[in-house]
Amino acid sequence: MEGLSLSKTQMEFEYDGPSMKTEVPGPRSKELTKQLGEIQNVGAINFFCNYEESRGNYLVDVDGNRMLDVYTQISSIPIGYPAEFPMFTSFSSQSAFVNRPALGIMPPENFPEKLAESLLSVAPSGMSRVQTMACGSCSNENAYKAMFIWYRNKERGHNIPSDEDVSSCMINQSPGCPDFSILSFMGGFHGRTMGCLATTHSKAIHKLDVPSFDWPIAPFPKLKYPLEEFTRENAQEEARCLEEVEDLIVQWRQKGRPVAGIVIEPIQAEGGDNHATPDFFKKLRNIAHKHGSAFHVDEVQTGGGATGKFWAHEHWGMDDPADIVSFSKKMLTGGFYHKDELQADKAYRIFNTWMGDPSKNLFLAEVLNVIRRENLLEEVTRSGKTLLQGLYQLQDQYPNLLSSARGQGTFCAIDIRDDATRNSILLKARDKGVLLGGCGDRSIRFRPALVFKEYHVHMFLNVFSDVLAEHN
Amino acid sequence: MEGLSLSKTQMEFEYDGPSMKTEVPGPRSKELTKQLGEIQNVGAINFFCNYEESRGNYLVDVDGNRMLDVYTQISSIPIGYPAEFPMFTSFSSQSAFVNRPALGIMPPENFPEKLAESLLSVAPSGMSRVQTMACGSCSNENAYKAMFIWYRNKERGHNIPSDEDVSSCMINQSPGCPDFSILSFMGGFHGRTMGCLATTHSKAIHKLDVPSFDWPIAPFPKLKYPLEEFTRENAQEEARCLEEVEDLIVQWRQKGRPVAGIVIEPIQAEGGDNHATPDFFKKLRNIAHKHGSAFHVDEVQTGGGATGKFWAHEHWGMDDPADIVSFSKKMLTGGFYHKDELQADKAYRIFNTWMGDPSKNLFLAEVLNVIRRENLLEEVTRSGKTLLQGLYQLQDQYPNLLSSARGQGTFCAIDIRDDATRNSILLKARDKGVLLGGCGDRSIRFRPALVFKEYHVHMFLNVFSDVLAEHN
Repeated sequence: MEGLSLSKTQMEFEYDGPSMKTEVPGPRSKELTKQLGEIQNVGAINFFCNYEESRGNYLVDVDGNRMLDVYTQISSIPIGYPAEFPMFTSFSSQSAFVNRPALGIMPPENFPEKLAESLLSVAPSGMSRVQTMACGSCSNENAYKAMFIWYRNKERGHNIPSDEDVSSCMINQSPGCPDFSILSFMGGFHGRTMGCLATTHSKAIHKLDVPSFDWPIAPFPKLKYPLEEFTRENAQEEARCLEEVEDLIVQWRQKGRPVAGIVIEPIQAEGGDNHATPDFFKKLRNIAHKHGSAFHVDEVQTGGGATGKFWAHEHWGMDDPADIVSFSKKMLTGGFYHKDELQADKAYRIFNTWMGDPSKNLFLAEVLNVIRRENLLEEVTRSGKTLLQGLYQLQDQYPNLLSSARGQGTFCAIDIRDDATRNSILLKARDKGVLLGGCGDRSIRFRPALVFKEYHVHMFLNVFSDVLAEHN
Repeated sequence: MEGLSLSKTQMEFEYDGPSMKTEVPGPRSKELTKQLGEIQNVGAINFFCNYEESRGNYLVDVDGNRMLDVYTQISSIPIGYPAEFPMFTSFSSQSAFVNRPALGIMPPENFPEKLAESLLSVAPSGMSRVQTMACGSCSNENAYKAMFIWYRNKERGHNIPSDEDVSSCMINQSPGCPDFSILSFMGGFHGRTMGCLATTHSKAIHKLDVPSFDWPIAPFPKLKYPLEEFTRENAQEEARCLEEVEDLIVQWRQKGRPVAGIVIEPIQAEGGDNHATPDFFKKLRNIAHKHGSAFHVDEVQTGGGATGKFWAHEHWGMDDPADIVSFSKKMLTGGFYHKDELQADKAYRIFNTWMGDPSKNLFLAEVLNVIRRENLLEEVTRSGKTLLQGLYQLQDQYPNLLSSARGQGTFCAIDIRDDATRNSILLKARDKGVLLGGCGDRSIRFRPALVFKEYHVHMFLNVFSDVLAEHN
């Protein structure tokens, strides 16, 4: 594998700070946005990037503006923007990029080995099986299907469908297409394809005008931060939500729509960086067990190290935390881990043409090597502490502007007085060379890459502090 | 763009025929299948490949068996397995592979240009807008969402949702999540995520145990082949199906589940290579117009040139063939073209983190250059004629074994006496160095790459003829 690993020098090379040349978006970005507007809806475009010039924690735009990136392509860049790409020097690696196989029928020779080096080397506790998929939504859709298949076979007591199952499923009817449900949480985000979307409840714009399923939706605890200062109130709120979960499971069973699975994020990200305690997740896991529902932890945004552990659910300290764990974003490929019993019983049930993209596994193996070699999870824990301390200080300094600073590792957030002020802060910070993202109604989420060090935190806090002073 | 194009020599270099060393799967494939079996369900694995050694129309497996590939990774390889990958010599191209952006918010500078060079350069008639997605299922899911949004705004007479729309959609309820439907056809295949799956009706194994929507399913014409010999019967059958389509649209409107869109493949592929005439599609298009439903042509398998035209629907000879055309597979990226009015009215409605993968657009631009330079559509037409003639001859020779030879370009198929014989023929052909795929109950589908020339057809027919002789 000579020539295939990112060297220390390549990782460490980056710029020494932001550098702004124009307003953002600048003239070149505006011109390109207009061009792209002839082809697509460009309402969400921030600006266009020069990825060749981007390095480490710095994203460079097409107008030459260099920004400290604390959003990282919606939390999807694991180790920053690398300076060189040594993998392409190898002919056999190139082949992996050009010859995209139908992985489910004709995988390349190194496929099991690369899965072992990449995804399996960081498999969650109790899981030795993984299925890759092309994106986060497909990962969750297929995880839901795996739970439905598992639940139905459990209900049958065997895996042989009846003739009626076979004929009715062809026309979308029960019993072949049973009225099973997935229990999700208000404020959750699990993707935008129609199965996922029925479990997504973060913003109306995602769901409006799209038909959905009548599935149960439980309240997610609304906790007070810092969690450790409000343990009693928070425990009450969590108990209330757990009680509601059990009620819903019973109600939906009575309605003839039994809950085959429960899906939850370890931290509700898109919905506003809403945290819950390990105790909540442990009890929820037990409720799933008790009622025979599968427990699916969606780590699409939380996974990959940003919380200081590779998987956010590791903070719960459980040996058997989940039946299914889905991922995407920082993992560079979508997919899901699952327990043995959640594997579909027959071929072609969890299947599509591409089933992921093996070239992404090659990248991921490289990225994981860097994470280990550079001890990036420790780095994240260190930077995260400094970041959260800084946010606490700013919150004390600007009590009318800021509240509820919270986070795990560098996966942090803070609430702003109102939506308009939040949006203004995001734009002002960008003008000063710091890229941030919003989430929920009025939160800012911090999503740096794993190479975000303490001196980057200080650089960020300085800019952020200036911006806040302008909004006080 | 120096150094970025595939030269004629690179394209033409390939082996001179199949060469078999072991049975298939051979010992190395079996060993790897066992390894992968510890990680995934391997029930669908045929064998493992050596993609570095594969060239042109020949796929080489890990046991050194070299097979003429007439299935091409479930019809997803456009121009065969290339010998060299000149794109990787350019640093800026490499960056596109390593730095995967969130395309919907921060696209790379060359994104509009590459869309123009690739997808837009082959846009279907009447369509200048395209949205990329990561796979075929996501493409159809998002196309359905675009149709629902369009239909709902048409119904409202404006695009401003009511407060009730906004609040009800968050809990999956009408009117925010309306009870709209997509009309699909029995035998159709449109993917495996839950929205797509509600329109897929080709095989029970795809649908079993997964909850679905109560959406209308129309009969797809069951025609007699060759189509031109049975024009009267076929026209009657098509009229019957069209009548049923109109009945279903009226019924579902009365049920409160109006048909927002109709989705159909130009040739039902997975469902058994079922053809219909241009007249059928023209009339169906008119029915959609008449009832205010969007018309979605799914070209995921048929698109990209295998029918002898770039899009199979071009054979219908219409100026305004569709409102939405989705693609994936040979296009190397998923996505959909659409008319201006089908563009979502607001940002973040058709959206996800990756929104495709710009590195695939770079490959596609290269592939399209080769298709044009080498006149591959003419090649396909020529090879396809020879292939279909050959199938007709074999069908005359083996009337008890073969029937219903049919095809457009090299996108051909033939029916076999029964399922067991079909499967035996597929395996025997593989042992003799020819890779084929099945579809429907008892059909064989031919899906060579666009570089499949007349001498490849003859090579294939010789092997196929030998295999048939063993089954007569």
